[in-house]
Amino acid sequence: MGVSIPSEFGYVVFTGTASAFVLMYKAINVGMARKKYGIKYPKMYSEENGGDNMFNCIQRAHQNSLENYPQFLWVLFTGGLAHPVVASIAGWIYMAGRIAFAKGYYTGNPENRRWGSFGYIGMFTLIGCSVHSGLRMLGIA
Amino acid sequence: MGVSIPSEFGYVVFTGTASAFVLMYKAINVGMARKKYGIKYPKMYSEENGGDNMFNCIQRAHQNSLENYPQFLWVLFTGGLAHPVVASIAGWIYMAGRIAFAKGYYTGNPENRRWGSFGYIGMFTLIGCSVHSGLRMLGIA
Amino acid sequence: MGVSIPSEFGYVVFTGTASAFVLMYKAINVGMARKKYGIKYPKMYSEENGGDNMFNCIQRAHQNSLENYPQFLWVLFTGGLAHPVVASIAGWIYMAGRIAFAKGYYTGNPENRRWGSFGYIGMFTLIGCSVHSGLRMLGIA
Repeated sequence: MGVSIPSEFGYVVFTGTASAFVLMYKAINVGMARKKYGIKYPKMYSEENGGDNMFNCIQRAHQNSLENYPQFLWVLFTGGLAHPVVASIAGWIYMAGRIAFAKGYYTGNPENRRWGSFGYIGMFTLIGCSVHSGLRMLGIA
Repeated sequence: MGVSIPSEFGYVVFTGTASAFVLMYKAINVGMARKKYGIKYPKMYSEENGGDNMFNCIQRAHQNSLENYPQFLWVLFTGGLAHPVVASIAGWIYMAGRIAFAKGYYTGNPENRRWGSFGYIGMFTLIGCSVHSGLRMLGIA
Repeated sequence: MGVSIPSEFGYVVFTGTASAFVLMYKAINVGMARKKYGIKYPKMYSEENGGDNMFNCIQRAHQNSLENYPQFLWVLFTGGLAHPVVASIAGWIYMAGRIAFAKGYYTGNPENRRWGSFGYIGMFTLIGCSVHSGLRMLGIA
């Protein structure tokens, strides 16, 4: 006996792969900002004269997404085993939140990164799906 | 023919999802330290006057965990396909090691991050589980 | 009805676990460079006198790999469900690209990181495998 991957898991596969492009979008913005603000590799942040705030905001928007990304893929995958459609929708909400987070950060005012706070709805839904998936595997729920 | 996900994989799902909370704990500590030491977004590290050592230790404890996190989730998942119970226990040892690593780093003396070195026992066990899982899939072991 | 993990997925397991050692190789290089250039924990980059370019190149080579790593594991896994052998070969091409990227960066001239550009062949192949895997699960392809 064991658990099989449901056919609708295909939606989960697309969602996770789409999220790679959300990160690529942020990485490209960093690359363009490097040119605009003259921040050369291998420098990570602008530091001179206290640092250029706008460049550092664009860089942090990318980095913050990375800090939350492996966890997202884990709950997307494991939650998607039991609830592929719900997990996929939650994944798109999360991704929309990460884009809004970046758009807010790109204003140069770090407070505006909160524009993306609704993405937590997606994240918490995914955590719930993942826990339920684990319980179901064990025959508890 | 193929490999199915065992029922006990539910423990693996819980372990991986719990690890997201270990990282959240470290991220929250960084957020609190930002307030305490007055390090505003989008600044990543304290730089003025050589940088505040304590803040930077708290920041590095989080960042170092991130540097090892995708690998952990990979060997947890793939090792857990063949050995769900062993992989889960190893995962909890690894997480305990990551918490001890952070507690050591939070003393302000980077040498104390070695408090978490026992976490390698968990990591090496997971690598072993993963390799055995791959061999078993191929019918070699 | 559902999707099962093919026996050849064992190759995918090995490929992903091998990639952890590629990152470990880069992390060890950072550790050795810390000693050579006297960059103590918790400092992330060399900053004094504009920063030591060589140390920062070695640090960035590791960090850049981390920025692309969760995505790689996702497409390797999901693409490998449908095309385990192709995905594994693509994974090794990608890893070789990441090593060449680092070797180029280690010259101290960030432009030479392009030595690893052929790794994109592996990445794009994996994205294709992943999309096809999703379509096949849904019964579309």
